Amino acid sequence: MYRIGFGIDFHQLVEGRKLVIGGVTIPHHKGALGHSDADVLLHAICDALLGALALGDIGIHFPNTDEQFKDIDSRILLEKSYELIKQKGYLVVNVDSSLCLEAPKIKKHGNEMRAVIASILEISQDDVSVKATTTEKMGFVGREEGLVAYATVLLVRQGV
Amino acid sequence: MYRIGFGIDFHQLVEGRKLVIGGVTIPHHKGALGHSDADVLLHAICDALLGALALGDIGIHFPNTDEQFKDIDSRILLEKSYELIKQKGYLVVNVDSSLCLEAPKIKKHGNEMRAVIASILEISQDDVSVKATTTEKMGFVGREEGLVAYATVLLVRQGV
Amino acid sequence: MYRIGFGIDFHQLVEGRKLVIGGVTIPHHKGALGHSDADVLLHAICDALLGALALGDIGIHFPNTDEQFKDIDSRILLEKSYELIKQKGYLVVNVDSSLCLEAPKIKKHGNEMRAVIASILEISQDDVSVKATTTEKMGFVGREEGLVAYATVLLVRQGV
Ligand SMILES: [Zn+2]
Ligand SMILES: [Zn+2]
Ligand SMILES: [Zn+2]
Repeated sequence: MYRIGFGIDFHQLVEGRKLVIGGVTIPHHKGALGHSDADVLLHAICDALLGALALGDIGIHFPNTDEQFKDIDSRILLEKSYELIKQKGYLVVNVDSSLCLEAPKIKKHGNEMRAVIASILEISQDDVSVKATTTEKMGFVGREEGLVAYATVLLVRQGV
Repeated sequence: MYRIGFGIDFHQLVEGRKLVIGGVTIPHHKGALGHSDADVLLHAICDALLGALALGDIGIHFPNTDEQFKDIDSRILLEKSYELIKQKGYLVVNVDSSLCLEAPKIKKHGNEMRAVIASILEISQDDVSVKATTTEKMGFVGREEGLVAYATVLLVRQGV
Repeated sequence: MYRIGFGIDFHQLVEGRKLVIGGVTIPHHKGALGHSDADVLLHAICDALLGALALGDIGIHFPNTDEQFKDIDSRILLEKSYELIKQKGYLVVNVDSSLCLEAPKIKKHGNEMRAVIASILEISQDDVSVKATTTEKMGFVGREEGLVAYATVLLVRQGV
């Protein structure tokens, strides 16, 4: 039996922070603001995994008021989310994601992000998609005030 | 055979209206503006159900110019949407949804929303996910002018 | 084996451009700005198809800096994206999409859009959904500065 999940995440872009997307640190004059490393892509994927099995959301599992998650590497959050999926007897079929950001161009980092995600989710890089688009200068993404990530996942029950 | 559906809905938050989300009335100084009870979450799920079988959208089935839908309880719209799915021979596998709103916190109402939705769609609460996130103060959601809901559904043909 | 894909696309609405959505030219005082014909719906579906098989995104396959795609009919881009899916041995089960725009009303053009998309993707019109919503006057869509399209697709491996 299959299940689908969907996640969306938002972070402000500000001076004086690192920009970490998909587990990759990207050189840029602004970074993402947040309690953890503010990895918008991994957070969206965490939420999609949790959502597919109705296990709550990233804010419930990893509250931004909890000191143990301060500046945490979001790859750890993705590992923890994936563990919960596996415990329920599910595997990941594929992940598709879309980043909305005006700058910087992340195309050259896409494969590295996919490798990070595939490794954590124990799937092939061919089963992980990271796409990117601008919002054509519109809205808070267009004004480079923030970035948004969307993720969808398809899960399948192990041994079925 | 499976089918996927996706829905998105928007409502303004204004003084003098009730805030109904996922069939649950939530105490707040603002409520959602709309022709019906303006339940952003149930509307997104209606659209995902209708979309999965290409049956049109909520605006076609329940026009906001039709007096019979004035102030209507959106649980009725979800029931009607689900009836159309069943008539086509499909059942719901799972629903995943994301609410984007700055305030109020809806975490403590999540299980009640899931119970409402699960009951209407004749599935277990374990098959219904309601997640929530802020937009980190950005955009019209961040300014508390409105709220957005996303929903994805997986359907399966009965008896297959 | 199934796969899911997700796409999102944005275009500005400006005077002096045609408004092409879902392969249909729609009379309106504004049109969508872009390098190609700026068909927001077909672009979102292209991205969902490519994303489902982790084949990159529309910006990688059809760069907006490439003269060969200047003012191109996006139906050609959808054909090319679908060819890549078929080459990998996959077929489309269903497509669900949502257009977010304040004006014009596109309801009466919905079936024509569905016919265009179904024909290119070699599926029935019953397997293609085009839904529409306003953003209730909020944000850049609400101010009629632009439009957004979301698309989800479910693919299945041929002969499975
Ligand atoms: Zn986040
Ligand atoms: Zn609504
Ligand atoms: Zn486009």
